[in-house]
Amino acid sequence: MSHSDIAVESGLQLKRGLPRIERWLLHQVFKVIGPAPLRFAMGDGTELSPPGVSPVATVIIRDRQTLLKLIADPEMAFGEAYSEGLIEVEGDLTQGLEAVYRTWPSGRGEGSPYRRLTSALMNRLQDNTERGSRANIHRHYDLGNDFYKLWLDENLVYTCAYFPSPSATLEEAQEAKLDYVCRKLALRPGETVIEAGCGWGALALHMARRYGVTVKAFNISHEQIEFARCRASKEGLCNRVEFIEDDYRNVSGVFDVFVSVGMLEHVGQNHFADFERVIHRSIGDAGRGLLHFIGRSYQGEFSRWIRRRIFPGAYAPTLAEAMTVLQPHGYAVLDVENLRLHYAKTLEHWLHRFEQSSQQVCDMYGAWFQRAWRLYLAGSIAGFRTGTLQLFQITFAGSNAAPISWTRAPLYLDGASANEASRWTHAMS
Amino acid sequence: MSHSDIAVESGLQLKRGLPRIERWLLHQVFKVIGPAPLRFAMGDGTELSPPGVSPVATVIIRDRQTLLKLIADPEMAFGEAYSEGLIEVEGDLTQGLEAVYRTWPSGRGEGSPYRRLTSALMNRLQDNTERGSRANIHRHYDLGNDFYKLWLDENLVYTCAYFPSPSATLEEAQEAKLDYVCRKLALRPGETVIEAGCGWGALALHMARRYGVTVKAFNISHEQIEFARCRASKEGLCNRVEFIEDDYRNVSGVFDVFVSVGMLEHVGQNHFADFERVIHRSIGDAGRGLLHFIGRSYQGEFSRWIRRRIFPGAYAPTLAEAMTVLQPHGYAVLDVENLRLHYAKTLEHWLHRFEQSSQQVCDMYGAWFQRAWRLYLAGSIAGFRTGTLQLFQITFAGSNAAPISWTRAPLYLDGASANEASRWTHAMS
Repeated sequence: MSHSDIAVESGLQLKRGLPRIERWLLHQVFKVIGPAPLRFAMGDGTELSPPGVSPVATVIIRDRQTLLKLIADPEMAFGEAYSEGLIEVEGDLTQGLEAVYRTWPSGRGEGSPYRRLTSALMNRLQDNTERGSRANIHRHYDLGNDFYKLWLDENLVYTCAYFPSPSATLEEAQEAKLDYVCRKLALRPGETVIEAGCGWGALALHMARRYGVTVKAFNISHEQIEFARCRASKEGLCNRVEFIEDDYRNVSGVFDVFVSVGMLEHVGQNHFADFERVIHRSIGDAGRGLLHFIGRSYQGEFSRWIRRRIFPGAYAPTLAEAMTVLQPHGYAVLDVENLRLHYAKTLEHWLHRFEQSSQQVCDMYGAWFQRAWRLYLAGSIAGFRTGTLQLFQITFAGSNAAPISWTRAPLYLDGASANEASRWTHAMS
Repeated sequence: MSHSDIAVESGLQLKRGLPRIERWLLHQVFKVIGPAPLRFAMGDGTELSPPGVSPVATVIIRDRQTLLKLIADPEMAFGEAYSEGLIEVEGDLTQGLEAVYRTWPSGRGEGSPYRRLTSALMNRLQDNTERGSRANIHRHYDLGNDFYKLWLDENLVYTCAYFPSPSATLEEAQEAKLDYVCRKLALRPGETVIEAGCGWGALALHMARRYGVTVKAFNISHEQIEFARCRASKEGLCNRVEFIEDDYRNVSGVFDVFVSVGMLEHVGQNHFADFERVIHRSIGDAGRGLLHFIGRSYQGEFSRWIRRRIFPGAYAPTLAEAMTVLQPHGYAVLDVENLRLHYAKTLEHWLHRFEQSSQQVCDMYGAWFQRAWRLYLAGSIAGFRTGTLQLFQITFAGSNAAPISWTRAPLYLDGASANEASRWTHAMS
């Protein structure tokens, strides 16, 4: 089959004068990623794009070696080459990635034997044992609080926000999220809460400050715990919030409420049983809890590039997999909400701020890091927009727990109506 | 060990003069069901109850043979003996059952080898093949519409209602449920809906009447379909609602929305793959849907008595099991709501009306039937109150479906606020 036959067969538009080998190679890229509305171009200006669509972005590949790597292992090579500046994207990076996520045929598969082998090896090396978790978490969350201050909200909440309206500011939306979690949990003054994975402490402090509960919050990121303790001390909340630098597996004590926001992703599939035991040990059959985590609609791993460069050891479970931490002890799921579009919007805010601080990020960690993190943030937006990633909030209760609420209406009503709704609830319990 | 030793050991209070063998046998009952706050009495007045609790009800067992059967196989014998009048319950039947559900140690286990064997055999005999389903559904739903009219609401909605407030009437709550389902699905005029298992047609008619959609509704209960067609005709909705007397597996056509309220329980574990294929065939990756079903927090079967006498072939799945009908095609779960307390309240209304019509029920089907159905209704209340049973509503969407709503607030807001919230949604999509 001649090259022009291939072009006719696939309908790809070839720029005249493109060397035969580059032409064939660019064609292979589309074979791998599917007919995404993208223009691929080589450094010398030769380019290829599917016909009849206007490309949302142009991917410029510096040299033939990069192109070969991209064909051989796009999952790893794109991120590596983009970070090194060997691939540039003209136009909107996020939209470009979104286009690929929508067409990539292997998006739901396990890929080639080579991919499966390297992925399994990576999982083994990054296993979330207590020691492994410390290393994995340290690599991401101990990059330095000053870095995260550049692009997170003022309270450093590094999880999906809740936008009552899409036009809410990031600050408003993170505050709304903290409150939404507390209201879903129906916290009452004097109750005790255990938090597994507390970030910089914003939720624990919010719960204590606004809902009058006592919180023990665990985290193995040294930088985050230091910061959280400092805030608790400044706010005079040390008597009600204890920040503990330790692994969730070492949680001890009995509590009314278990909460974990953005940590289940770091537990890892093969440690869900640990997590399940910690929940039951902490709240027994009378407690209630909330899990907030990045999940999926079908089983799949984070890309090897994300696991290698951004989130070592991370795994986003399906709802069925998440049930394995609740079902063994018969916890009843009360409520599941999917907030994936809220995470896309949260990430848009983060990326916008990140871009505005890109020179500072470069100065702090170099251009490679700045490009890698831009790609991670843009890719995450694309993942949540396309539904490759989901964000689940699960509210659950033990078999002997008191009912939380008669309906969900109080979560959305203003003060007066909410009080009335709450009266119904008390009449029921 | 002497009998008095047993009594001391267990702390059970023995009435003086109780024959030794009856005394030992009653003790065995408590061994099986756990220390429930019940008084067990024999026809001759001898009785036994755990110490230090005031019994919520007295279970009167007519003779020694019934007592022996109860010890040997309580799951089956209680229902049989109660229906035959060989067991009477003085006091509140529902509270008595609730007490047992809370203490029964084998509630979450699979029981003895005999139980497992007979249960497996029953599942085999009641398998929900197309033919099996027809027989199973016929036995329950074709008992006669006049019977169901005695104790259901005026629209004959035979699934969990939604009580905006616990004081709502059954009629209001069923209407609210129909509307809640439609609003969760964000139905738009002109859309097409496929309904699997439509009962007497109330939801299909509500959707067409209030939301301007076109509905194809499947059901294999002849009595129900006849009634539904009659209603559609009376309301002049035949051009927009088609009631089809056929198995869900024979659904054909492409639709915007899939909805199934109270049918997944009748599909049976080993036919979930059929159900999954029907969903995907009907709405592909662009559609959305809602499943409303009786579920569980841990794997377990309906009692053999319920499967033998009331709901042949029924199975209430866990959420993880329900995911097996959504995950193979990557449907995203948008929302899960647990309405178990609403089902307890729905059943309280049903049981109240049923008791008021008990003479008519006796006249129609005899005392055995009337007692069996009272037990089924009371037992269901106990199941939902104690959390042995759950009621899940799952809203889901295909990977290419347009977003339904930016937040859940519009479900709970009045007109003006809901319109504003809906504007946000449209701005997003």
